[in-house]
Amino acid sequence: MAATPADVKELPEAYVFVLDMPWLSADQVRVDVEEDGRTLVVSGERKREKERDQGIRYVWMERRLGKYLKRFPMPENANVEKVAARYKDGVLTVTVVKKPPEEPKKPKTVEVQVA
Amino acid sequence: MAATPADVKELPEAYVFVLDMPWLSADQVRVDVEEDGRTLVVSGERKREKERDQGIRYVWMERRLGKYLKRFPMPENANVEKVAARYKDGVLTVTVVKKPPEEPKKPKTVEVQVA
Repeated sequence: MAATPADVKELPEAYVFVLDMPWLSADQVRVDVEEDGRTLVVSGERKREKERDQGIRYVWMERRLGKYLKRFPMPENANVEKVAARYKDGVLTVTVVKKPPEEPKKPKTVEVQVA
Repeated sequence: MAATPADVKELPEAYVFVLDMPWLSADQVRVDVEEDGRTLVVSGERKREKERDQGIRYVWMERRLGKYLKRFPMPENANVEKVAARYKDGVLTVTVVKKPPEEPKKPKTVEVQVA
């Protein structure tokens, strides 16, 4: 199982999920929103880089590779229609925009009919 | 302390040290060979990315940042004059070329002087 430590940040207009994922390419990472519309899922597989050279001997293997899956429950006001993902320098950043706050419900006055 | 898991590989002509170091820039990593000429040292500091936005609240902090130091003893035949370091997609790769094998010592025949 590959290690994918994450930070979660809340900004005034968005939620931001930051994951350490060194040495990935676009086909090794997948970002989904589950059917419930409330869960962000980051998954994929981190494979050992292809070795061009022959005759390689591993003296030490400490980097954790393999499959990974990370699920983030999203707050009520997350707009799952507006999700953006960016990968740079080994770090994946997923931004989910917040929905604008709902209009406060105005008190409703019932008109009294005089019979 | 930042996490910097490493692989060490031996190739026919070189030793290769591979370290996971997501989200670094060139000024946050340093590669040295110690005075003894036998120890490779990778060190630096991983800082949290500068936040442009105001009003950020961290909901979750799992990514390990801070200082790091990793020392690799090098084999006798490592040529410390030929060290190359490359940083790409969050991974630092340091290559140390091997010295050519020494000429095998020929047996020496002592001439016997006849008195």
